[in-house]
Amino acid sequence: MFEFQNVITFQDRAIDVLTIGELLIDLIAAEYDDALEDTAYYRFFGGSPANIAMNLRKLGINSQIAAAVGKDRLGDFLIQRLQSVGIEPDLIEKVSESTSMVLLNKSKSSPIPIFYRSADYQLTSTSKLEEAVRGSKILHFSCWPISMPPARQMIETMIEVAAQHHIRVGFDPNYHPMLWPKDDDGVAYVKSMVGKVDFVKPSDDDAERLFGKDKPMNQVEKFLELGAKLVILTMGKDGAIASNGSETVTFQTLATEVADTTGAGDAFWSGFYASLVKGNSVQESISLGFAVSAYKLRYTGAVVDLPSLETIKGMYSV
Amino acid sequence: MFEFQNVITFQDRAIDVLTIGELLIDLIAAEYDDALEDTAYYRFFGGSPANIAMNLRKLGINSQIAAAVGKDRLGDFLIQRLQSVGIEPDLIEKVSESTSMVLLNKSKSSPIPIFYRSADYQLTSTSKLEEAVRGSKILHFSCWPISMPPARQMIETMIEVAAQHHIRVGFDPNYHPMLWPKDDDGVAYVKSMVGKVDFVKPSDDDAERLFGKDKPMNQVEKFLELGAKLVILTMGKDGAIASNGSETVTFQTLATEVADTTGAGDAFWSGFYASLVKGNSVQESISLGFAVSAYKLRYTGAVVDLPSLETIKGMYSV
Repeated sequence: MFEFQNVITFQDRAIDVLTIGELLIDLIAAEYDDALEDTAYYRFFGGSPANIAMNLRKLGINSQIAAAVGKDRLGDFLIQRLQSVGIEPDLIEKVSESTSMVLLNKSKSSPIPIFYRSADYQLTSTSKLEEAVRGSKILHFSCWPISMPPARQMIETMIEVAAQHHIRVGFDPNYHPMLWPKDDDGVAYVKSMVGKVDFVKPSDDDAERLFGKDKPMNQVEKFLELGAKLVILTMGKDGAIASNGSETVTFQTLATEVADTTGAGDAFWSGFYASLVKGNSVQESISLGFAVSAYKLRYTGAVVDLPSLETIKGMYSV
Repeated sequence: MFEFQNVITFQDRAIDVLTIGELLIDLIAAEYDDALEDTAYYRFFGGSPANIAMNLRKLGINSQIAAAVGKDRLGDFLIQRLQSVGIEPDLIEKVSESTSMVLLNKSKSSPIPIFYRSADYQLTSTSKLEEAVRGSKILHFSCWPISMPPARQMIETMIEVAAQHHIRVGFDPNYHPMLWPKDDDGVAYVKSMVGKVDFVKPSDDDAERLFGKDKPMNQVEKFLELGAKLVILTMGKDGAIASNGSETVTFQTLATEVADTTGAGDAFWSGFYASLVKGNSVQESISLGFAVSAYKLRYTGAVVDLPSLETIKGMYSV
């Protein structure tokens, strides 16, 4: 039970947070109208676990990422960006498939993604990866690697390794039907994952895709019924609800200025994990997650320059 | 036997040239160095058979294209471009996979492509497509659809339909190992196709990928041995060699000014087919193919504005 006023204890491990999964290119249209012939797309570093690993380094936390990219210029670019924050590509596999991409239109609301998945789900279990998981305090993944083999089997194996070695596991249930093979029941599989991990942070959209439309508190209940130990349901400007099944706390948004929502959820995870690792309570860590997210929302881009966790804590009085 | 001084006769059919296969997005880096964070890529209409269908309309020939695109903004954009030259998307299937893309760096020599194949090879045999093939004078395809199921079976079926109904078939043996599934012998499959069609136009690079390095005349011989009825081997600035097995003719390049080589091969096919359909001899049609190609080489882009075939014929004195 993760009591809100308690601190979560971790084993002494070399890696604070190991994220596994999608390291990819976001290609974002330069203009809102991308119907014209000469539309330009700008290339950005992307992938939710990759963003989290980057943010954590900026917050002074020893993060690592395990991912697969193509043996191409895009893969080289992503690795260079990781190295720029001190992450060596020891756990990055270079595979013969092309580096995955997500093409996005520029949008004032939610952009409609076009997925080009190729290298990202080729990550397989290796003894090196298993060793890295054993050497971590927290393991994090999203719906991307579990949507396709062979990455799905790799995640299943790593969850078992994590359970055997008292590693905390966070899971982003960012289910999207476009990620899943047509003949596979993604909703059922994602639901089956919820009880196997420690932390889940669905957005209200994620919850609706998994359970249909319902009141936020009911959605939280559904995650708890699936065996979730700590659920944090985020609702954009309407704040968030967190519950461990016996305590439920609501959070107001800390965002005062919204330039770009891209990466806001990744910023939450980053602040939350950074705070947990630094020995703050569960409740304080959730608040710090929202503070880092509010800071990120003021700037454009999925990964922005972040000051120290202490500075952000002071800025948002959490 | 396609004698060089003879005219090829066609049945009276509604469609002059039906191209089948890749209709996709070319994403081309704005700068030669695409290592930087803020690299932009420009989006262009692309896919070799799509370029040929576009060119043919500009040359006043009734072309059609059968292809599969995604139900996404990129697919909509491609369809709009086809409609701009009068091609209605009757034979364009909108599938649940993403519209295929090729990402290219800007290069003064040959750019290195990164392939994102998804919708393009989902094209299947339908009675509507079969009817369109039966209603055509010429059928054209490249290595893209034959590299992957289900499009491969569709092409095999359409070649049979073409044979039964006296439709001439052109095949671009643009073999590239990146197009083929790793466990499939693409070279052997492409070779098996050569004898089933009427016209093949390998570049010297294509020939080298299929047969290894050799003298141009030897490469032509190898295509003839595989059963090719008319081989046109192009060698860039070194011109071309064409052979029907008993007659062999060499062609000098007509290009005087080279701004961009993208789409030069597609321009050849367009001029060649346009000329054949207009009742010119085989040799004159090959010359007109090189004239249209030379005209295209003066401008940037795969599909450029083309004057009438007669104007180009006059410009290059062929």
